[in-house]
Amino acid sequence: MKLQIFDSTLRDGAQGANISFSVDDKLKVIETLDALGVSFIEAGNPFSNPAEMQFFQRAAAMKLKHAKLVAFGSTRRKGVTAEEDKNLASLLAANTEYVAIFGKSHILHVTDVIKAAPEENLAMIADSVRFLTARGKKVVFDAEHFFDGYKADAGYALAALDAAKEAGACCLCLCDTNGGVFPDEAYSITKAVTERFHDTTVAIHCHNDGGLAVADSIEAVKAGARQIQGTFLGFGERCGNANLSTIICNLQLKRGYECIPPEKMKDIYQAAMEIAETANVAVPENQPYIGMNAFAHKAGMHADGVLKYSSSFEHIDPETVGNKRKLPLSEISGKSAIYDKLKGYFPSLDKNGREMGEIVAALKERALSGYQYEGAEASFILLVEKILGKYRSSFDLINYKVINELPAIEGKVASAIIKIRVGGTTKISASDGEGPVHAMDLALRSALAEFYPEIAKVTLTDFKVRVLDSDKATAAKVRVLITSSGGADSWTTVGVSEDIIEASWTALTDSIDYALMRR
Amino acid sequence: MKLQIFDSTLRDGAQGANISFSVDDKLKVIETLDALGVSFIEAGNPFSNPAEMQFFQRAAAMKLKHAKLVAFGSTRRKGVTAEEDKNLASLLAANTEYVAIFGKSHILHVTDVIKAAPEENLAMIADSVRFLTARGKKVVFDAEHFFDGYKADAGYALAALDAAKEAGACCLCLCDTNGGVFPDEAYSITKAVTERFHDTTVAIHCHNDGGLAVADSIEAVKAGARQIQGTFLGFGERCGNANLSTIICNLQLKRGYECIPPEKMKDIYQAAMEIAETANVAVPENQPYIGMNAFAHKAGMHADGVLKYSSSFEHIDPETVGNKRKLPLSEISGKSAIYDKLKGYFPSLDKNGREMGEIVAALKERALSGYQYEGAEASFILLVEKILGKYRSSFDLINYKVINELPAIEGKVASAIIKIRVGGTTKISASDGEGPVHAMDLALRSALAEFYPEIAKVTLTDFKVRVLDSDKATAAKVRVLITSSGGADSWTTVGVSEDIIEASWTALTDSIDYALMRR
Repeated sequence: MKLQIFDSTLRDGAQGANISFSVDDKLKVIETLDALGVSFIEAGNPFSNPAEMQFFQRAAAMKLKHAKLVAFGSTRRKGVTAEEDKNLASLLAANTEYVAIFGKSHILHVTDVIKAAPEENLAMIADSVRFLTARGKKVVFDAEHFFDGYKADAGYALAALDAAKEAGACCLCLCDTNGGVFPDEAYSITKAVTERFHDTTVAIHCHNDGGLAVADSIEAVKAGARQIQGTFLGFGERCGNANLSTIICNLQLKRGYECIPPEKMKDIYQAAMEIAETANVAVPENQPYIGMNAFAHKAGMHADGVLKYSSSFEHIDPETVGNKRKLPLSEISGKSAIYDKLKGYFPSLDKNGREMGEIVAALKERALSGYQYEGAEASFILLVEKILGKYRSSFDLINYKVINELPAIEGKVASAIIKIRVGGTTKISASDGEGPVHAMDLALRSALAEFYPEIAKVTLTDFKVRVLDSDKATAAKVRVLITSSGGADSWTTVGVSEDIIEASWTALTDSIDYALMRR
Repeated sequence: MKLQIFDSTLRDGAQGANISFSVDDKLKVIETLDALGVSFIEAGNPFSNPAEMQFFQRAAAMKLKHAKLVAFGSTRRKGVTAEEDKNLASLLAANTEYVAIFGKSHILHVTDVIKAAPEENLAMIADSVRFLTARGKKVVFDAEHFFDGYKADAGYALAALDAAKEAGACCLCLCDTNGGVFPDEAYSITKAVTERFHDTTVAIHCHNDGGLAVADSIEAVKAGARQIQGTFLGFGERCGNANLSTIICNLQLKRGYECIPPEKMKDIYQAAMEIAETANVAVPENQPYIGMNAFAHKAGMHADGVLKYSSSFEHIDPETVGNKRKLPLSEISGKSAIYDKLKGYFPSLDKNGREMGEIVAALKERALSGYQYEGAEASFILLVEKILGKYRSSFDLINYKVINELPAIEGKVASAIIKIRVGGTTKISASDGEGPVHAMDLALRSALAEFYPEIAKVTLTDFKVRVLDSDKATAAKVRVLITSSGGADSWTTVGVSEDIIEASWTALTDSIDYALMRR
C-alpha cells in the first residue's frame, strides 16, 4: 500500500535550534527530496517574513518530478473575516497547489490561549478552509494538539475535524504538538478518527518529546493514517519532529508499505547526507539506518559474528539504504580499503608493496594534523603522486601577499599579489576581491592564464571552512575544502592550517594541480 | 507498580563508538546511578581484560545505597564443562551478588554461528546457570536474539528460557539484539513470555536500530516485563541501546510506574550531565527530557503560547526532571520571546511600543543578510542598544590593514596594523599572529590596553566559521561566531561578510564592546 510522505524539514524543521536555510539552501533541499520521491514538501510560511515569500516565488519556477510544494499558514484570526486575513492572502500568493493550515482542536487552548468561544474557533476553521478551497487550493488541515485535545474532550476535537472536512479539506492531520503521546494512544485515537472519516486521507504529525515519534507514526499508520508528516532528519523544535528517514526505512523495508519508489531506497543515505550538508549539521553517528555508525561493529565478537553471518548483528543489509558496514580499522583492513580506492588511478601499485605501507602511514600522520581526505579525494591522489614520485608541480610559488583593509578601497576590502614561476618564467599578478581568498584565487588564475589557458574553464563551485579546535579561539586550526568543476566533473581538495589564508592556498593550488594533471 | 531499572552504560554502553571508561570513570558513573536510585548496574565483563577484573575488585569496596552491581559474561563454551570454563570462573571472581549471562535462543544462530546442536545449546544454558546459582549467585539470563528467534522458531526460543528458568535463573531477559523489532511485536511476544513465566521476573533489552527502543521497552512493560535494561543516555553499539533516561521519565511521569524513588526525578537532568561529562560526550541538544533544547521554543507563536499557558507546547513541566525552559532568539521568534529576553537588560522597554516594533523588524532584516542571533545574544543586546540610542562605542576604528604572506616571516604568516581613536586620542598598534584573525585580535587588544586595562581579563574561548552560500565559492558570505569569557561568565558575538576578516572584525569589536558595557 502506498503512503504519502510529507516532509516539513523546511518549515517545522527550520524551527530546530541552529537550523536555518537560505533561499538557495531551500531550493537544494527541495531538489534532493523530490529526487528521492517524497509526495509533499512543506516549504515554509509565506506570511512569516519577506524572505519566505521571495523563496516561494523562486520555487514556483522549479520543475518537480514527484513532490508537490505546500505553503503553511494558520486559520484566520479571531474577529476578522477570511477575506481580511493577511495570512490567508499570503497563502494564496505563495502560488502552490496545496496549502496546510493549522487550527485549534483542543478545547482548553481555544478558551484559554486564543480566548475564543468554541463555536468561533470552529467557524475560523471552516471559513479558512472554505476560503482557500473556493480559490482552487487543496487544503491539509493540521489539527493542533489533537491527541491531547481528544483526551480532554473527544467531541470537540472531532468537531474541529468535522468543520475542516465539511469545508472541503482534502486531508485531516492529527498533530501531537507537544510530543507526549504514547504509541498505544496514537493507535487508538487515530483508529477512532479513521473510522469516522473513512473517505478522507488522515495524516499523522508527531514530535519526539517522549522519544516516541517514530513509533507513534508507525502505530498511526497501522490504525489507517495514510500520510506521515515529519522531517527527513528529525529536525524540529525542542526534541525534533518524527524522523522520516527512519520511518520510511521501517515501513518500507519491514512492513511492505510504499513510501517512496522502491528503486529510490538505496538513495536514502545519500539524500540524508545532502540535506545535512545543506543544513550544515552532522547526521548523528548513531542515527538509525543513515548514521555513520548505524552498521558499525566495535566489539570484536560482533565484528567476527557479522562477517560469518551478516544477520548476527544487522537488522537489514546496509546497502539497501545506501549505507555501509563499518568495522574498526585495523592496519590490514585499512590497507584494503585504501588500495581499493587507488587501484583505478595507479594500476601498477602493489597492494603489499613498500609504497602502500608509506601511503597508509602518511594518511595516518596527516589525519593527526587535521587532514581528512574522505571528502577530498583529489588532494589524496596528489599526496599519493608525491609519495610515488609521480608528482609534477604545475607552478612554484615565489611568494604571495594578501592584504585586508578597512575602510575598503573603492568597495574592495581585500587584495592579493602573487608571484609564481612556471618553467623558467617568472610572473607576478594581482587582484582585488570580496574577501582574501577570493582575491587570491583571482590573482592566481590571472598569473597562470598565459601558461595554462585551460584553467579559465575551471570554476570553484564550493568553499567550506571548519574550525578544528575552536577552543583555541582565533589561533585555532581550520580545515578548508574547495570544490572545483571543469564542466562535467568536479573534485574537492583540502588544506589545513592555523592560518585560514594558507589553508585556502593549499586547497586552491591542489585544485589547480589536479585540474592540470587530469589533462 | 515498581519496575527494576538495569543500567548497562558501563558494559553495553561502552561498546558505543567513541565511548570508553577508565576505572575511575566507572566508579564515578556507579556513584551517579546509585544516587539516582536505579536497581542494577551492569558494570562490565570481568573476563574481557585485566582492567575489568581490577575494576570489580575496587567496586566491591563501594557502599551502594540502592543499586546492585552485576558482572556480565556468557554461558559456557561448547565442549567444555561449566567447571572448566574460564569466563564463568571470572564471573565468580568478580564477587558480585548478581551476574548476567547471555546465551543463544535463536535456532539459526545455534546451528549456523556457534554450530552447536540445539540440545547442546540448551545444556550450555542450563549448566551455566546451575553452576552459578549453586555458588550463591543470582543469575539474569539474557536470551540473545530472542525476538528474531521467537519469530523463527518460538518453541526453541521458549525452550532456551525454560532451560535457564529450571536451572534457577531469577530473571529472564528478552533481548532484541539487532534492534529491529516493532512495538506491536515487542508487546505480543513479551506477553507470550510473561504468561508462560508468570512467577519469574521478565526483563526487556532493546537496541535502537529502528529508532524504536524506547517504544519497544514501554510496550514490553505493558505486556508484563518488570525489568528494563538499557543505558542511561542511550550509549551503545551501532544506533545505541534503549535510552533509560527517556524510559524512566515516560513511565514514571506519565504511566505511574515507580522506576526510581519519586523524590529523585528532579535529579535526572543532573545525573545525565554527570554521566555525559564522565564519558566526555555531549548530551544531544534535542534529547527527550534532558537535552539542552528539550524545552526550547524558537518559533514566535510557540514562545508566545508557552509564556501564556505552559502546556501549550510543553508535555511536562521541565523542572520536574531538573531541566529548564529556553527561548532562543531568531528571526522567527515573536515579540513575546524577544521582549522576555530583553526586559532584564532594558527594564523600561515597552512591549507594545514603537521601539519593540523596530527591534523585531531589525532582527528580521538582519536575518536576511545572514545574521543569526540565536547563539550570539551579546551582539543582539548591542544591536538593541543602538536602536534605543543607548549605545556608546568604546572606540572608533580609523583603519586596519591585515597582511598574509608566504613565505612566512620568522614563522608568522600574518600581521595586522590597527589604528583606533578613543576619546580624543589616536593609537596605532600592530601584531603578528598564527593567522589573520589572531593577528588582528592581538593588535586590537594591544591598542586598547592603555584605555581599558580590564580587557586583559577577557579571553576568546571559541571561534566558529560558517560559509553561508558555499556555492559562491571563495566569494561566499561567511558568518563568524566568537565566544569570549571574562572569568565566570561568557558571551558570544557574531559578524557576517563576504570577507572573513571583516566578519571576524565585527564579531571581535562586538565582543570588546559587550565586555566594556558589562562593567
